[in-house]
Amino acid sequence: MARIALDAMGGDFAPSAPVAGALLALAELDPSHRIQLVGIPEVIRREIDEALSGAHAALASHADRLDIIEASDVIDMSEKPSAAVRGKPNSSMHVGLKLQPEGRSDAFVSAGNTGAQMAISTLVLRLHPGLSRPAISTVFPTAAQSVVVLDSGANVDCSPQELLQFARLGSVYAEDMLGRSNPVIGLLSIGEEPEKGNVAVKEAHQLLLQSGLNFQGNVEGRDLPMGRSDRGPIDVVVCDGFVGNALLKFYEAVAPMLINMVARQAGLSKEQLAATFKNLDYSEHGGAPLLGVKGVSIISHGKSSPRAITSAIKVAVRAVETRMNDHIGRRLSESEQAGSVA
Amino acid sequence: MARIALDAMGGDFAPSAPVAGALLALAELDPSHRIQLVGIPEVIRREIDEALSGAHAALASHADRLDIIEASDVIDMSEKPSAAVRGKPNSSMHVGLKLQPEGRSDAFVSAGNTGAQMAISTLVLRLHPGLSRPAISTVFPTAAQSVVVLDSGANVDCSPQELLQFARLGSVYAEDMLGRSNPVIGLLSIGEEPEKGNVAVKEAHQLLLQSGLNFQGNVEGRDLPMGRSDRGPIDVVVCDGFVGNALLKFYEAVAPMLINMVARQAGLSKEQLAATFKNLDYSEHGGAPLLGVKGVSIISHGKSSPRAITSAIKVAVRAVETRMNDHIGRRLSESEQAGSVA
Repeated sequence: MARIALDAMGGDFAPSAPVAGALLALAELDPSHRIQLVGIPEVIRREIDEALSGAHAALASHADRLDIIEASDVIDMSEKPSAAVRGKPNSSMHVGLKLQPEGRSDAFVSAGNTGAQMAISTLVLRLHPGLSRPAISTVFPTAAQSVVVLDSGANVDCSPQELLQFARLGSVYAEDMLGRSNPVIGLLSIGEEPEKGNVAVKEAHQLLLQSGLNFQGNVEGRDLPMGRSDRGPIDVVVCDGFVGNALLKFYEAVAPMLINMVARQAGLSKEQLAATFKNLDYSEHGGAPLLGVKGVSIISHGKSSPRAITSAIKVAVRAVETRMNDHIGRRLSESEQAGSVA
Repeated sequence: MARIALDAMGGDFAPSAPVAGALLALAELDPSHRIQLVGIPEVIRREIDEALSGAHAALASHADRLDIIEASDVIDMSEKPSAAVRGKPNSSMHVGLKLQPEGRSDAFVSAGNTGAQMAISTLVLRLHPGLSRPAISTVFPTAAQSVVVLDSGANVDCSPQELLQFARLGSVYAEDMLGRSNPVIGLLSIGEEPEKGNVAVKEAHQLLLQSGLNFQGNVEGRDLPMGRSDRGPIDVVVCDGFVGNALLKFYEAVAPMLINMVARQAGLSKEQLAATFKNLDYSEHGGAPLLGVKGVSIISHGKSSPRAITSAIKVAVRAVETRMNDHIGRRLSESEQAGSVA
C-alpha cells in the first residue's frame, strides 16, 4: 500500500495531464494504492469532474482513491528555483513533499519546474549523510536491456567523489527499480583505457576500482545505445550532469528524427511504427527519481502527457515497494564505514 | 591541383583500404590532383598490384597519379602517442606530414592512431599563434543541414578561451568546407539561458557574445539532431572534447541501432534502407580536419573502409582548394589584434 502525492499544478499540461494520469494509474495499479492530488482544491475538483464526465468517464469507479491536499501557491515553470524555495512555502511542491516527513505520504511526483523540485526536495526531505547534492537518473532504452544513466542534469562540474556517489546511487536504483542483481557499472569516458578521460573521470576511475561496486571500467558513447561494451552488458552509466543531460536530450530528439526519416524512406505510416516508437517513447519510461534525498521524489518531464504521469506514478510505487530509499541510506553508510576503516 | 599525402600504413584495414581508397578517389577527382602513398614501398607496391589485378582492375588508368614516398616505420594503432612522437621519426605519419613544410605536399590524410596524428601534426606543422592545442571538428548529419561539432575529442577540460577558439575555428570550417556564409554558432549547454551550464560554458557564453561571431546563444542536445534550435538553424556547435566525443560516438552507434530496429519492425531489408543509411553513414562524411595546425591534416576513422578513405581525401582536396588554413590564420590574427586594441 503506497500513498503517492502528485503535484496537480506542475507541468505544461497541468492540471489536466496530472489528473488524467492519476485516474489512469489508479485503474492499473493494485487497489491498495492511493493518490494525493496536491494543489488548489477547486481547480482540482473541477478538473476531476471534467475528466469523469468526458474522456475518462470509464475510470469513475477509481476516483474514490483520489485525495485532495490543499496547497494555495503554484510554482511557475520558468520561475527561478532559489526564489521559489524561499518565496512560496505553500506551493504544491512544498506541501506535497512535506507530507513525507510528516508520515502522511510515501512519495511525491511532479512534472513541474525541475530545478525547484530538486531544491525543495533537498530542503524538505534532506540528503543522506555524505552527499552534497542529489542526482537525477534516467533510464535509456537500448538495443538490449535498458541502462540507468546518472547524473542526467542535476549536477555539473562534478568531483571524482561525486561520480563515485552516482555509481553507488545508480547501483541501488538498478537493483530495486530494474531488478538487476549486482549491477554492472560503467564510467563514461572517451576511451576504455583508465588513463583516458578528463581530470575528474580519471580520478573517479581509480575510486571506482576500490569501491566494492561491480565496476566494468570506462565505457564510451557508442556503448550506450547497445547496452553493452566489448566487455559485456552494462546496467549503470556514470557521468556528470552536463554530459548526461546533453546525451539524454540528444537521444530524445534523435530517435524520432531517425525513425521519421526511415518511415518516410520506406513509405510507412507513423501508426505502423507505433510499437517501435513505444519502446523509445519517453512517456513509457518517464519518471526519474531524484536520488540521494531521504524520501521519494519523482521528476517527470515538463511536457508530460497523462500516460507519462501514469508511468511516473508507477515508478514512485515501485520505489516505495522496494524500499529503495532505505537501501540507498544503508549502502551509503556501509561505504562510509568501510572507507573509515580502510 | 593538390598533392595529398596518404598514410598507407594507418588504420585497421591498412594497407588495403588506403590503397583502394586512393584509387577510388583518383577516379572521381579532377585529374590535376595526385596522391602520395606514404609507407613501406614494397608493401605499397604489392598492394597496388593486387588491387589492380583484382577488385579494382577498372581503376588501372588512374594509377599513374599515385606516388610512393618511403617511410620505414609504422605507428601501431594502440601505441602511446608520446612514445610514437619521440621514438619513430621515420614513421609514415612523420614523413607524410613533413612533406608540407618542405613544400612537397599540400595535405596529409591518415586513418591511423589519432592521438599520434594529433601530436605529430602539432610538432611538424606547428600551431597558429594564440592556440594551445588543435581541435577536431566532425560534421553531424541532421534532419536539416549538417552541423559542425567541435571539439569532438582532441581536448578535454577546456577553458572558456579554448571554447571561444573552437568557435572561431568552426566558423571558418563551416564557411570553407560547407559553404555557409556567416555561420551561426551555438554553444552546447543544458539550457538556453546564459546562466545555464558548467563553469567553463557560462564564461565562454560571455566571451562569445563579444567575439564578433554570429553567436546564437546556448543550444541543447535536442537541437543537434534537428540542426536548429527554437531560434533558427545552427551551423556550428561548440563543446569540449569530452562531451563532443561522447555525442559523436553515441550518434554513430544509435543511428544503425534505431534504423535496424525500425527495419525489423517494418519487415524491411537493409538494402531498402540503403539511401537512408547513406545519409548517416560515417564513411560518407568521414575525414575530420585537425583544426589549428599550420597545414592540412585529415583524421579518418581507424575502421575506415576504402569509401571512407576516399571521402577523407576529398575533404583534404577541398581544404586545400578553399585555402581554409590561410583563412584560419587570418581570422585568428584579426581577433588577436581586435582583442589587443579593446
